[in-house]
Amino acid sequence: MAFSFNVVKKDSATRARLGRLVTTHGVVETPAFMAVGTQGSVKALSPRDLREIGCQMILANTYHLYLRPGVEVIRDLGGLHCFMGWEGPILTDSGGYQVFSLGAFRKISEDGVRFQSHLDGSTHLLTPERVIEIQEDLGSDITMVLDECIPYPATRDYVCLSTERTVRWGRRSLEARRRSGQALFAIVQGGMYSDLRESCVKGLTQLPYDGFAVGGLGVGEGETLLSEMAGFVAGILPEDRPRYLMGVGRPQDLISAVQSGYDLFDCVLPTRNARNGTLFTSRGKLSIKRAEFSRDPRPLDESCHCYCCQHFSRAYLRHLYLAGEILAAILHTLHNLYFYNHLMKRLREAIREEGDELRILNSEWTKEERSP
Amino acid sequence: MAFSFNVVKKDSATRARLGRLVTTHGVVETPAFMAVGTQGSVKALSPRDLREIGCQMILANTYHLYLRPGVEVIRDLGGLHCFMGWEGPILTDSGGYQVFSLGAFRKISEDGVRFQSHLDGSTHLLTPERVIEIQEDLGSDITMVLDECIPYPATRDYVCLSTERTVRWGRRSLEARRRSGQALFAIVQGGMYSDLRESCVKGLTQLPYDGFAVGGLGVGEGETLLSEMAGFVAGILPEDRPRYLMGVGRPQDLISAVQSGYDLFDCVLPTRNARNGTLFTSRGKLSIKRAEFSRDPRPLDESCHCYCCQHFSRAYLRHLYLAGEILAAILHTLHNLYFYNHLMKRLREAIREEGDELRILNSEWTKEERSP
Repeated sequence: MAFSFNVVKKDSATRARLGRLVTTHGVVETPAFMAVGTQGSVKALSPRDLREIGCQMILANTYHLYLRPGVEVIRDLGGLHCFMGWEGPILTDSGGYQVFSLGAFRKISEDGVRFQSHLDGSTHLLTPERVIEIQEDLGSDITMVLDECIPYPATRDYVCLSTERTVRWGRRSLEARRRSGQALFAIVQGGMYSDLRESCVKGLTQLPYDGFAVGGLGVGEGETLLSEMAGFVAGILPEDRPRYLMGVGRPQDLISAVQSGYDLFDCVLPTRNARNGTLFTSRGKLSIKRAEFSRDPRPLDESCHCYCCQHFSRAYLRHLYLAGEILAAILHTLHNLYFYNHLMKRLREAIREEGDELRILNSEWTKEERSP
Repeated sequence: MAFSFNVVKKDSATRARLGRLVTTHGVVETPAFMAVGTQGSVKALSPRDLREIGCQMILANTYHLYLRPGVEVIRDLGGLHCFMGWEGPILTDSGGYQVFSLGAFRKISEDGVRFQSHLDGSTHLLTPERVIEIQEDLGSDITMVLDECIPYPATRDYVCLSTERTVRWGRRSLEARRRSGQALFAIVQGGMYSDLRESCVKGLTQLPYDGFAVGGLGVGEGETLLSEMAGFVAGILPEDRPRYLMGVGRPQDLISAVQSGYDLFDCVLPTRNARNGTLFTSRGKLSIKRAEFSRDPRPLDESCHCYCCQHFSRAYLRHLYLAGEILAAILHTLHNLYFYNHLMKRLREAIREEGDELRILNSEWTKEERSP
């Protein structure tokens, strides 16, 4: 099935929109949050757990899978869906972000990026063409172009040079495609310079990408700048293509970005926090290690319908966490991802219904930290 | 519901028997293997996973739960079943074994055993009466008397003194009971001295225990001595009470012990091996780290019907294991416990049918290590 995206409904008061993204492996209702399965596994959950808690699409990482187990292994075993037993849509990150955050001795040239593996120090060259080839072998539903994720802060000169190269790499990525049935998203860079973001968008939108991601945000620039820049870029991206805000973020960031017109999100926050004992609830964040929960018979969130909240008390979860039991990571991840998926569902319903729900969600999450 | 045990059928060629053990929280068809949930969680699995793979009863540990989270916490939260979300039968070990293997500076007297917590060094006294009280607060279906697990080797004099004390502790345990609805099993000690085992059995069987466990085996005495002593003790235990061989063992040990007349088993082997990447299959043990599996599209065991074998290849499991993914521990534990439960089911069917199945199982597992 060919890739398609349709805006089903637009909110009248904000730029939020309800969308329907069709991929070879199924439909994704947007706005949607993708669970992060970096190494071909969403940490601590099985594919059936993911389906149960409403995950529509997962994100896997080209850089990590390329280094281990190797793309040939996955290709020969029938592609990533088959390899990891996930039949739903998969988006693969290009690996650009990981090369810059994990790869040692990286050297960027017009050709691509040379780096050393964080696993064994071996040297690799990733070019825009090679990254497409790898993602075609993985067989993901949405592939991403190789980009440079620019650190913050960065000089205007560097951001300008880097962003122009990312645009050129995008063109090479499009030309390198050999397989059908996979979408290709470009990545908007440009640092914190609106005019460079704008020229990047102009460069990218001249070509037939299936969607546009916004990268280089959430890299230390702070909440205000993140929100402003994300809002600015969303406003100049085409209406008819999906918009993906990469690596963001907290519940309040998602609520805000949906109202700026974003459709797709991914972030390690719910899964990583889960393993660290930090849980998201409808009344704010909760740290399960706190002594106050040692005899608390209540579930993490009394209004939550996940398996964890339907069967286990805070006292038990605290015990599991302090005892180092793997089940703590499992139940906490299940809950946090359920929470994120449920939040996205509420956002979709809010857009569909045009009631007070968007305003309610806004006010619920205006304060970052709330004690449950 | 009161505790009861009935031998449903006896094998004509061996001492194997099919039994029905009724507890307050449900029926256990024996011979049965109990999954070990030391700290109130069978490592890496949720209660629904346990039900799915056919776990009938689980074992939890009095010593560990007493130290963390503390028995009052569990009691106040409605007992262990409610605390850990497991509605089926639970057997609680007395903690004797852990005091002797984990507790520092332990001092045994007629009164009981004084020891230091392996968690924080705090000092505790466990008496036979206190151990019953704790298990009544936990609310387990089968409770165990406090015993001393005698190390191997040990002098005849020491074994004699210790075993006589375990018999006296048993009597005090019976007298200490305040709650109904919980069974109490005595523990046969006696080291590797048949006559001391025999006098222990004579001492214990004068009292109305609901079942008899055999302890102090699998402590380094070797396969032959283990099998001989287990067989000897089973032969002198009452026919009408369940027999529980504690801490044993490998598939071949279970097959042998069932034919000696044992009904219940527990062992950390399937769960611990799972986390170490060692899997049980119908063709022997398999170490998932081996390079030969890096591109192997087959499931762990082609004849297995567990979720892991139905959905994932050896290549994927090897990748998860090498990448340190929690899902490796989850899927491997699911498989190994399914394997153990399925083995027990085959043993029960073999006894029921009186066909060649027992002989087939024997021959399948005569060699310990087989390459799949």
